[in-house]
Amino acid sequence: MTVTMDAAALQAFLAQDFGQVAEDFSVERADAAGVTLRLRVVTRHLRPGGTVSGPAMFGLADVAMYLAILSRIGPVALAVTTNCAIDFMRKPHAGVDLLAQARVLKLGRSLAVGDVLLFSEGGPEPVARASLTYAIPPA
Amino acid sequence: MTVTMDAAALQAFLAQDFGQVAEDFSVERADAAGVTLRLRVVTRHLRPGGTVSGPAMFGLADVAMYLAILSRIGPVALAVTTNCAIDFMRKPHAGVDLLAQARVLKLGRSLAVGDVLLFSEGGPEPVARASLTYAIPPA
Amino acid sequence: MTVTMDAAALQAFLAQDFGQVAEDFSVERADAAGVTLRLRVVTRHLRPGGTVSGPAMFGLADVAMYLAILSRIGPVALAVTTNCAIDFMRKPHAGVDLLAQARVLKLGRSLAVGDVLLFSEGGPEPVARASLTYAIPPA
Amino acid sequence: MTVTMDAAALQAFLAQDFGQVAEDFSVERADAAGVTLRLRVVTRHLRPGGTVSGPAMFGLADVAMYLAILSRIGPVALAVTTNCAIDFMRKPHAGVDLLAQARVLKLGRSLAVGDVLLFSEGGPEPVARASLTYAIPPA
Repeated sequence: MTVTMDAAALQAFLAQDFGQVAEDFSVERADAAGVTLRLRVVTRHLRPGGTVSGPAMFGLADVAMYLAILSRIGPVALAVTTNCAIDFMRKPHAGVDLLAQARVLKLGRSLAVGDVLLFSEGGPEPVARASLTYAIPPA
Repeated sequence: MTVTMDAAALQAFLAQDFGQVAEDFSVERADAAGVTLRLRVVTRHLRPGGTVSGPAMFGLADVAMYLAILSRIGPVALAVTTNCAIDFMRKPHAGVDLLAQARVLKLGRSLAVGDVLLFSEGGPEPVARASLTYAIPPA
Repeated sequence: MTVTMDAAALQAFLAQDFGQVAEDFSVERADAAGVTLRLRVVTRHLRPGGTVSGPAMFGLADVAMYLAILSRIGPVALAVTTNCAIDFMRKPHAGVDLLAQARVLKLGRSLAVGDVLLFSEGGPEPVARASLTYAIPPA
Repeated sequence: MTVTMDAAALQAFLAQDFGQVAEDFSVERADAAGVTLRLRVVTRHLRPGGTVSGPAMFGLADVAMYLAILSRIGPVALAVTTNCAIDFMRKPHAGVDLLAQARVLKLGRSLAVGDVLLFSEGGPEPVARASLTYAIPPA
């Protein structure tokens, strides 16, 4: 599949349309294989104990898949998540960022499906995996 | 199934162990049928457009199921979410709280499974549904 | 929600469009609350050990939700399953049928979402739960 | 991760413990990257219209993940599936076998998690994806 928005274009899109949360995320890579997105972990992403919270991991997976779809179809601000299945497999490392690797498995006219692996930076094994479906509004 | 922690006990547990987020949640009901939990919606739960964000809905479902399990087994702070499947079905209403109705479907020695319906307050139809699995640490 | 196909109409639909498997299933109930479907358990539904296999439980949940949707929208043979999340919670009892209780949670123009509880006949607690999404073809 | 059962050992395990269905499946590959399993498609796997049924695809994903876990931990006949999330993305091609590529993402003491892509033989794009959790009985 070809890419219509690169990492810089995706980052600019985030800044414009998701002002509040854009600074949390950094688009590290966007190419035919998918998108890699960094969550800059700060205090409000943590739960008691100091590891990244479930909602923060969910949010990272969701935004990574959203950007992976946009990298293919261009800036469609209205695509909405309809389903997510997420497995929390390991406790994230304390004090490091999280990296999400998202790939698109299906890009249909009305539905897009993909999956995401989440890693603690520097860790070889995924801390979580997720699969997500987005509804794409009619053109 | 019998309840070992009622609504007041669950609310006190939240305040003690989840200080940062406890004020977001109000335990409305806890009985044999399950737990009803309110998310007091404030600005940081919203995404562009003014509706409650996906991560905020995920977090509400997660905490509601956590409390529904605790209401049965007592204050076990270490139970962790291992899996969640969530369907986002309707856009939440703007300007109202969300209510989660959680029920426990299985309470095993090592795994607990349940599901949750999320409603906009005053709305008759669920805005989301989720099923979650928690791992219960050995006693 | 109102019902446009009752139990007898759903059973007739199964016999006509799903000839091969129709005899496995019996529609026990279809009303505003949802559909109850019986799997007549025979040897080919069993796995080693004598309990109902995972694929047979998946198939029961899938057909139950399909019929629950049809009970609302009428005989649309082309609705397809796009997603299923299923939790296997208890070993089914040997030597008894399975009963599925399916309810529709959302009936949109293009997507329908619902969930299903599976019981061994006579058993009080669910052996499995599932949530499913169906894509509804344009009219 | 190292492999303790290779393709031949897995095939022999299937023949011994899953006599009824073993002939449906052929282990094509088993190495550090995971397991590739073929479903020899015959009439009973098909639904009206001639494509492979949902339960047959679910069953293929389930067996593929089961074998991928066994390839790591050896012949533990009692591991059971506790959860599966599956997305049906494209209609399988008629008249060809299905191939499942399963990989293990977490192998804990009590839970194993992995995911699976399903392809129609010769087709470049996956027809389905699934993630599964297995409970591993105490040694």
